[in-house]
Amino acid sequence: MIVTIIGTVAAVLTTTAMFPQAIRIIRTRDVHGISLIMYLAHTTGILFWLSYGVMLKEWPIILANCVGIMPASFILFLKIKLGRNELNKTNCTSDVS
Amino acid sequence: MIVTIIGTVAAVLTTTAMFPQAIRIIRTRDVHGISLIMYLAHTTGILFWLSYGVMLKEWPIILANCVGIMPASFILFLKIKLGRNELNKTNCTSDVS
Repeated sequence: MIVTIIGTVAAVLTTTAMFPQAIRIIRTRDVHGISLIMYLAHTTGILFWLSYGVMLKEWPIILANCVGIMPASFILFLKIKLGRNELNKTNCTSDVS
Repeated sequence: MIVTIIGTVAAVLTTTAMFPQAIRIIRTRDVHGISLIMYLAHTTGILFWLSYGVMLKEWPIILANCVGIMPASFILFLKIKLGRNELNKTNCTSDVS
């Protein structure tokens, strides 16, 4: 029972953790400190988890990753979109770490 | 077989995704766009996953989260440390999203 509660709290925290990051970017429009590689790797990883869940027909894995992919892909989209604007404004070269 | 490969790729990508973010912060010292709440929630979530793994004696869960907690807690530490320096320099109020 206690193990199930701890696992559920863990799953909720790690699945929803990226929503505040998405909200912060919407508010500040600041993506300079955000790592493109992190969100590329993370979004790709979630797509693999989704495929894994679908192949095993495991609904908890499918559902958790359907939630998780929303902020991850949205942050990736904002990083690319706002990062390009930033680059146009400052006319300097970008690094991708 | 293919399912195991897909699951392993998924696990490696989502477990290691935060390392490039940690490296980016070390290089740029820019934590303004980084969400404090995200890394608080994520680090706490990983601690819960670790407890869950220890309780079930599941080594894959323990190992994956021992790796995952390193960049997560390091980014959280840098956000607090560098965010405080930034605040001292600019003397403006901080938000925590």
